Amino acid sequence: MIPRYSRPAMTAIWSPETRFRIWFEIEAHATTALAELGVVPREAADRVWEKGRDAVFDVARIDEIEAVTKHDVIAFLTHLAEIVGPEARFVHQGMTSSDVLDTCLNVQLVRAADILIADVDALLSALKRRAFEHRMTPTIGRSHGIHAEPVTFGLKLAQAYAEFERARARLVAAREEVATCAISGAVGTFANIDPRVEAHVAKAMGLTPEPVSTQVIPRDRHAMFFATLGVVASSVERLSVEIRHLQRTEVLEAEEFFSEGQKGSSAMPHKRNPVLTENMTGLARMVRAYALPAMENVALWHERDISHSSVERMIGPDATVTLDFALARLTGVVDKLLIYPANMQKNLDRLGGLVHSQRVLLALTQAGVSREDAYRLVQRNAMPVWRGEGDFLTLLKADPEVTAALSPEQIEECFDLAYHFKHVDTIFARVFGEEGRPET
Amino acid sequence: MIPRYSRPAMTAIWSPETRFRIWFEIEAHATTALAELGVVPREAADRVWEKGRDAVFDVARIDEIEAVTKHDVIAFLTHLAEIVGPEARFVHQGMTSSDVLDTCLNVQLVRAADILIADVDALLSALKRRAFEHRMTPTIGRSHGIHAEPVTFGLKLAQAYAEFERARARLVAAREEVATCAISGAVGTFANIDPRVEAHVAKAMGLTPEPVSTQVIPRDRHAMFFATLGVVASSVERLSVEIRHLQRTEVLEAEEFFSEGQKGSSAMPHKRNPVLTENMTGLARMVRAYALPAMENVALWHERDISHSSVERMIGPDATVTLDFALARLTGVVDKLLIYPANMQKNLDRLGGLVHSQRVLLALTQAGVSREDAYRLVQRNAMPVWRGEGDFLTLLKADPEVTAALSPEQIEECFDLAYHFKHVDTIFARVFGEEGRPET
Amino acid sequence: MIPRYSRPAMTAIWSPETRFRIWFEIEAHATTALAELGVVPREAADRVWEKGRDAVFDVARIDEIEAVTKHDVIAFLTHLAEIVGPEARFVHQGMTSSDVLDTCLNVQLVRAADILIADVDALLSALKRRAFEHRMTPTIGRSHGIHAEPVTFGLKLAQAYAEFERARARLVAAREEVATCAISGAVGTFANIDPRVEAHVAKAMGLTPEPVSTQVIPRDRHAMFFATLGVVASSVERLSVEIRHLQRTEVLEAEEFFSEGQKGSSAMPHKRNPVLTENMTGLARMVRAYALPAMENVALWHERDISHSSVERMIGPDATVTLDFALARLTGVVDKLLIYPANMQKNLDRLGGLVHSQRVLLALTQAGVSREDAYRLVQRNAMPVWRGEGDFLTLLKADPEVTAALSPEQIEECFDLAYHFKHVDTIFARVFGEEGRPET
Amino acid sequence: MIPRYSRPAMTAIWSPETRFRIWFEIEAHATTALAELGVVPREAADRVWEKGRDAVFDVARIDEIEAVTKHDVIAFLTHLAEIVGPEARFVHQGMTSSDVLDTCLNVQLVRAADILIADVDALLSALKRRAFEHRMTPTIGRSHGIHAEPVTFGLKLAQAYAEFERARARLVAAREEVATCAISGAVGTFANIDPRVEAHVAKAMGLTPEPVSTQVIPRDRHAMFFATLGVVASSVERLSVEIRHLQRTEVLEAEEFFSEGQKGSSAMPHKRNPVLTENMTGLARMVRAYALPAMENVALWHERDISHSSVERMIGPDATVTLDFALARLTGVVDKLLIYPANMQKNLDRLGGLVHSQRVLLALTQAGVSREDAYRLVQRNAMPVWRGEGDFLTLLKADPEVTAALSPEQIEECFDLAYHFKHVDTIFARVFGEEGRPET
Repeated sequence: MIPRYSRPAMTAIWSPETRFRIWFEIEAHATTALAELGVVPREAADRVWEKGRDAVFDVARIDEIEAVTKHDVIAFLTHLAEIVGPEARFVHQGMTSSDVLDTCLNVQLVRAADILIADVDALLSALKRRAFEHRMTPTIGRSHGIHAEPVTFGLKLAQAYAEFERARARLVAAREEVATCAISGAVGTFANIDPRVEAHVAKAMGLTPEPVSTQVIPRDRHAMFFATLGVVASSVERLSVEIRHLQRTEVLEAEEFFSEGQKGSSAMPHKRNPVLTENMTGLARMVRAYALPAMENVALWHERDISHSSVERMIGPDATVTLDFALARLTGVVDKLLIYPANMQKNLDRLGGLVHSQRVLLALTQAGVSREDAYRLVQRNAMPVWRGEGDFLTLLKADPEVTAALSPEQIEECFDLAYHFKHVDTIFARVFGEEGRPET
Repeated sequence: MIPRYSRPAMTAIWSPETRFRIWFEIEAHATTALAELGVVPREAADRVWEKGRDAVFDVARIDEIEAVTKHDVIAFLTHLAEIVGPEARFVHQGMTSSDVLDTCLNVQLVRAADILIADVDALLSALKRRAFEHRMTPTIGRSHGIHAEPVTFGLKLAQAYAEFERARARLVAAREEVATCAISGAVGTFANIDPRVEAHVAKAMGLTPEPVSTQVIPRDRHAMFFATLGVVASSVERLSVEIRHLQRTEVLEAEEFFSEGQKGSSAMPHKRNPVLTENMTGLARMVRAYALPAMENVALWHERDISHSSVERMIGPDATVTLDFALARLTGVVDKLLIYPANMQKNLDRLGGLVHSQRVLLALTQAGVSREDAYRLVQRNAMPVWRGEGDFLTLLKADPEVTAALSPEQIEECFDLAYHFKHVDTIFARVFGEEGRPET
Repeated sequence: MIPRYSRPAMTAIWSPETRFRIWFEIEAHATTALAELGVVPREAADRVWEKGRDAVFDVARIDEIEAVTKHDVIAFLTHLAEIVGPEARFVHQGMTSSDVLDTCLNVQLVRAADILIADVDALLSALKRRAFEHRMTPTIGRSHGIHAEPVTFGLKLAQAYAEFERARARLVAAREEVATCAISGAVGTFANIDPRVEAHVAKAMGLTPEPVSTQVIPRDRHAMFFATLGVVASSVERLSVEIRHLQRTEVLEAEEFFSEGQKGSSAMPHKRNPVLTENMTGLARMVRAYALPAMENVALWHERDISHSSVERMIGPDATVTLDFALARLTGVVDKLLIYPANMQKNLDRLGGLVHSQRVLLALTQAGVSREDAYRLVQRNAMPVWRGEGDFLTLLKADPEVTAALSPEQIEECFDLAYHFKHVDTIFARVFGEEGRPET
Repeated sequence: MIPRYSRPAMTAIWSPETRFRIWFEIEAHATTALAELGVVPREAADRVWEKGRDAVFDVARIDEIEAVTKHDVIAFLTHLAEIVGPEARFVHQGMTSSDVLDTCLNVQLVRAADILIADVDALLSALKRRAFEHRMTPTIGRSHGIHAEPVTFGLKLAQAYAEFERARARLVAAREEVATCAISGAVGTFANIDPRVEAHVAKAMGLTPEPVSTQVIPRDRHAMFFATLGVVASSVERLSVEIRHLQRTEVLEAEEFFSEGQKGSSAMPHKRNPVLTENMTGLARMVRAYALPAMENVALWHERDISHSSVERMIGPDATVTLDFALARLTGVVDKLLIYPANMQKNLDRLGGLVHSQRVLLALTQAGVSREDAYRLVQRNAMPVWRGEGDFLTLLKADPEVTAALSPEQIEECFDLAYHFKHVDTIFARVFGEEGRPET
């Protein structure tokens, strides 16, 4: 996580201020529950809320205490006592530090997931708008980087939309994976704390109780969370790579938006580099990499070891902040993407109509020409086109063997893009629902 | 995937025979749909089924043809024509090879997921049985490898059960991710094939149509699938590492079952190595590693490139076969795990009662001793125990400052395991449902 | 490792036959050394060599024995006794199975490294030939996929040459990392075997003794080996991606060679897909992924655990066979790469000379025009070119403000490719040594 | 990279201040070289040095300029001009931003490598001291976590020493991989800058010229660098895991040092958690993970794309700072490790002498007992020991069949640890050289 690739809302989740605020809430809710159970005085719980609700926890002071105690939760509780007064001794009763730390981490991950889901929603909205805008903009479909058959630019974006809808569903599932709470004591047996405290805190914090915690919340949940982020990042990479390809000098079917003031555009007007999508390609590599240590974190020893902690201090912020940034950047790129239908058409025409050879072949066989003859006819007209000697349609129309089988209209029909686009609306309806179907 | 770590049912999914059988089914169902749409003669479709339904596809023959054509699907179709006769020319109309290949891959992955889910079910069943068997078997809970407070062995297994229930749910979701079908032609526009063919094939093969395919089914689905396998494998590693720890000479609370004939056990009776769980630890590393290339596969160029193919030819079998093997092996290990409650008790007692120091501290403060004094009292009785000079309970009972605050019964109570286990049933009920609650 | 992506020489290293042959050599050399030390009878050692030197070890028989003993080395030794007779009891004295297994693995990895180094040599040779062939073939240099300034195609290949020379050096270092031998007994203390036996076997097998083995050879060596393969594979990917880009329809500066018989080329002459380089892109992902479990293998427990074994049974063959295949395939692709200088020139000219704008700017300032004015002049002539309205050189020559500062010759000079290529020979000499310097 | 796991010297390498200082040096040295070639006035170069040598570059000011220009190098050069005055226009002539950025990155990585090498040296020194201290301290060797045969604690540390000597050599090689400089202009052709400038800067900065740069320095170098860090981190993990095992309650052969003031030690004297080594286990996971994106960075498009940049902004600091911290922490742990020979002896004795069963077996066969009989004898005496009924030596001495073959002295000899340690000096001499051989 570095400032250059960070956005404030996500970064704030990982600040010490937020962390201490969440710790406070967990401790205060637990105290309330303990009071309800008669374990601690009601007034103590009230006092904790009263003094702490709007308190500003002094990060420097807590650090100072931690430098002595070498224990972050104790340092916080000590500081809390400075704010709350003697009633603070009723806080944290029967709890273990991990109850606070693990529940807090999950609250942070849930909030991070909420931002990521909102990011995807914004991206979906941009994709949808641009997809409809270019629903019928013809462009060449490419397999292996080689011209294949026509598609529409809207279809490309519809595919991205469908992919990010899946990303969204995965993020929702990932959020649920980590939306658990553990207030279960030293080794998870509730020996010193009633399970009803956990139930109370969980509800208050928007979580569900972890069925079996063992001091810690099991890390398969977090592994799944970060693995999901890696997959979502890979989809960011896919769309980024698509745009990078489209912006290549020889292709130039789309370009990242360049603000007026941006450097060097007009003396070298061609030198508009797809730096944003290249950047996201790199960011995706990072988010993906973070999935690995998250998976290695699962096999903690016995009831817990603390090897997961350093990993999570890093990838917690790094993965979520980076993916948030990438999603938001991608949304901006899609939203303002410069799209050049004329260049798409030029590229479509670049091969002199050869992209329709397959269809001509089919038309000839359907007209009764043998497969071998049809292939020969297509081939002898395709090769000159390939060498740059003429245009496929013209040559076909001038070939008597071809015209013996197909009328000029039939030949021309093979070059009709509408043939390829007749099911575009069907696909749009699949992706966007019935609203995707244009009015008739 | 190597024979040593493979089981036949999973391996069979990836055999050429199975692949060609699935290809046949896709092609035959598509032909049926084309016939229903009047595109090809009904008799052709019937003939394809009639001849192909029970045909044995000759792998060697297909390889032979592929050596010439350099194209696997064409080789198969050529061989199919040898079996079906001239009607075979109606097969594959308007389709592209990827329609067959990608749909087939997903059928294979779905079947693999079904086996993995069944594997997890078997593991869950073993875990549940053993968990109830040892619901109340006391054992020491360890954090950082250091004795913490008592838990029960059943709780350890209940935690594993809960974790593999999550693994199961993830596998079900992963299965759904890849349960899609694409029969959409060259670049996914249905230019040469009616979408209803896809719908027909999808239904017949137990899949749903891919909303937007672009010659290929998008690879974020497969990335999610393999990432999920990596997470599940990490849970296999966790339980394996737990067992390896328990089998250590100094711990010896459990052992992998050794068959009678197994080498070298009685001259060196201590030398029973947890080789199965060590083996699974390694296998988990492999399954996890396969998630990475699967994620890198997502960013294919434009409508498709074929870089994903070599990866999938490898990780398709490798990841599923290896995880299947590991899950089945783990089930066997759990099922027959030798569990030594006496050794657990011995380990529990090893520290002369020091694991109860926390509770004594609490009892003293609850009895009105100041925190500082309570700490001093516990400490002065704990240190001799730690040096091996006596037993904590005895020393406490002989300390007049302690007995001034606590009666002998109260002191003894601090050493009562029941205190720690009072919520075991609650946790079991959370994990196993009401059936988890023992009859009263 | 799957047959489709395997070559026989590398695959043979990993066959059971090779493994048993290496085991035999280790055991026989060790027996010789033991005889020299007087530990076993000289005749026994002679007999082992005499009977075993040309023996064919019966893999099926060994498997049969292993099915009973559950121990591969014992199974082999039992079979060896069937061949050698009673003297076989002097074999393996004081050794542990790992002595044989680990030393064998390293022999296999060394042999694999030798093949990989030879593969790189063949690739270097092809790269060099093609680099010199196109030392002065102009082509556009691209940053961010956008035209930048001219380079030569030979420079591209010289860069690849330099990169694979580094790959070679890394493989040599990786080979050295694993060229060690351990014959040190149960926990590596030489309690039951003289260190001179190890020295003898090491020398005979072309290895050096492992300074400290602990039953096993430490796995940091293997981690480094497989990490190196991952880096080399990444270089394979880089050159593959370059070729894929060059073969794009819109670029078409180079193409993978297509054999005459290869399918579908002439009816769709444009549809030549870079399937080999795409395939290598995928293979690189796999080789890279194998580095991870190799690194996780390092932290074995205490003197050893066997979790590394399953990993190595997989990645040993998988990584080496796949990289060997990829390197050989890449050599073929480079060797027969179809290179199209005319298309390179066409692409160079595509922007109407705009790629020289930077140089014109420089020439103007050097001629005394202020930076602001120079920029304005370049810009006003560049923009029409960018819009497709004319050619940069012509426009500049017609701009009186430009011609006031620069003579027509000076303007033309800015468009001279020789300017860019004046140091090509210097770079070639750096890469290929003095032989790289063309005769004058 | 987070403050908690960072050390100042390494962190400083990655500060903006250091970066701008290195940029200045590269630019100033290049200007000097240009002056020597007569391209720019000598006075300009002098002036640049004079004004810039001790200048403090104002990071906030540069950020301010960058906010407008959106270009970091231009922002720096603008600020430099503010310091140097009009002569600054002679700076950066013929160079491209990447010349500065890539050369700077390599300077930073070289400096980072120097620190890491020094870290390893400190670790080696600590390991050596402790190894000699415990050269002959007996401890049980464990395979699979199960007692095997005796080793010495010094041998464990000697193995770690040998492993980190390899780590050192790898870091030296990794340093060399990235110690290159590129000052080659827009696409690496030296079109606008003389290669002698590069040679001059390289020498001045302690680098060698990159043979072929293509605007950027090829990223296979960096991939190798970060992969090496991943391997070194895996060795950190290995030693950390060893210590974690030794500190387990049931083993307790060693402990991380606990400072007096550290929390909670005496009321629960057993609860000393190996938190430092657990922490390093997690850090190793991170450093390892960073190798992946570094490898994916290799395949940049054509002469360069900028996808590597975001990755390096993260892993440059993250990987080096984290590994530096881990190495230094490990050195501290080793240096102050509490080692408990008495507990080692207790564990050695734990199995009542069964760890010598293998040697008794050998002694019996050497005394002429048949293998079968020897096995039976060992077994019948081993089993009661295993069940806790007696001590192996006593039982053997009381078994008439055993004593018929072996004298009491011969039996006792089998229990002599010296037998196992006779080659310890040999191994020490291998690892530490002749100085490793104790004086006689």
